Amino acid sequence: MRPTIYLFGDSITEQSFLQAAWGASLANLYCRRADVVLRGYGGYNTRWALRVLNKGKVFPPPQSSGGAPLAVTVFFGANDAALPDSFNAGVHVPLEEYKQNLRSIVAIFKERWPTTSVIFITPPPIDEAARLLDPDNKLGVVERTNKVAGQYAKACVAVAADCGIPSIDLWSKMQQSPGWQKAFLSDGLHLTPAGNTIVFEEVVRKFEEAGLKPEMLPLDLPLCNDLVPPNDALEVLDKFS
Amino acid sequence: MRPTIYLFGDSITEQSFLQAAWGASLANLYCRRADVVLRGYGGYNTRWALRVLNKGKVFPPPQSSGGAPLAVTVFFGANDAALPDSFNAGVHVPLEEYKQNLRSIVAIFKERWPTTSVIFITPPPIDEAARLLDPDNKLGVVERTNKVAGQYAKACVAVAADCGIPSIDLWSKMQQSPGWQKAFLSDGLHLTPAGNTIVFEEVVRKFEEAGLKPEMLPLDLPLCNDLVPPNDALEVLDKFS
Repeated sequence: MRPTIYLFGDSITEQSFLQAAWGASLANLYCRRADVVLRGYGGYNTRWALRVLNKGKVFPPPQSSGGAPLAVTVFFGANDAALPDSFNAGVHVPLEEYKQNLRSIVAIFKERWPTTSVIFITPPPIDEAARLLDPDNKLGVVERTNKVAGQYAKACVAVAADCGIPSIDLWSKMQQSPGWQKAFLSDGLHLTPAGNTIVFEEVVRKFEEAGLKPEMLPLDLPLCNDLVPPNDALEVLDKFS
Repeated sequence: MRPTIYLFGDSITEQSFLQAAWGASLANLYCRRADVVLRGYGGYNTRWALRVLNKGKVFPPPQSSGGAPLAVTVFFGANDAALPDSFNAGVHVPLEEYKQNLRSIVAIFKERWPTTSVIFITPPPIDEAARLLDPDNKLGVVERTNKVAGQYAKACVAVAADCGIPSIDLWSKMQQSPGWQKAFLSDGLHLTPAGNTIVFEEVVRKFEEAGLKPEMLPLDLPLCNDLVPPNDALEVLDKFS
């Protein structure tokens, strides 16, 4: 049976199968090797994520038939970093708690699945001008700033280093390209197709560094070319394991 | 835990997470309700599909922790219908055997998972002019014809009716639109974005008729709006089941 790759995160993960977004691109890349399974929850922060993990929700029990997943991406922080005095204060988590929550999430995954690659993705940068156009923003004051998102991104990278796991510093990576605000972000926070491509390419790179290059993983059934004459298809299928 | 929807078929299924293809669109539609899991095998026909099912491959054992899937789409026939005297003869399956194989596949699923919706999708129509451009076609003779694909499509619909399960007659549906050859098929066989949209919309319609409208399925965690003040997020999360 195929192994699993989980995508765990907030709305940027939940929307990762929309159009040609990064989750769908991963599912396509691993289409004969692994199941890319979506666990994205719009608006969620690390406090809520940790709570549901602690209560045994979201993921199957450790001893379930599927075995340990190959990898889990953990992509939270955009909501934690919402400003505590804004209209979106309900999703805010203080920076120190965010760091502690990320540490706890890693500890849960590492205890549950010692062989699984856990990869952090930082929140993306924020285009504040675009956020002011959010129809929910009736006060006309930004509810997220790029500076604060950067503090959470930096914290995310630091926790990953402390825990000895890889991280993708999306906040820094995107800002290396001039015009990142419109090129990569559709509403100042969520991803355009080009923004999705960056996340996809960075995740693929980290998966490869973790030994999860698709070509290195077994196929779950033979390729068609190995089933046509002069091969005996049914014999090849029966022997394949 | 979320239930599963399996997409079982040949290359048109295997490629269903490429760009905004029909599988990715389904995964996005069901993103908080069900896992859309890819079981597409390029070049496979019903003989090979049946063989691997009979050997207990492809799907988890019936008693595994995940439970019965909500639905399985069965999308074979494009390879079975390859002409037996063409360069692609190795994937051909005679029409009568195709029908019997489809019946056997339904019987296996219905015995294994009595509650699961099994939905057939017929092969698409063939644009023979485009097939002649296939670089593997060194003889310059078509290896699939629209007429023969239509015979397999008709058989697929008939077997579904016999078995009392729904089917999507993609072969007929696509040909209702003038210019279907280039509008829906990228190489005379596989799907363009517009072709993917047709498959997606037809599958969604059949899922809805089977009582699987996304809104009718439970969420696996509360929506963000139910977690922000005046609600107590952790209390709501703990009570949610």
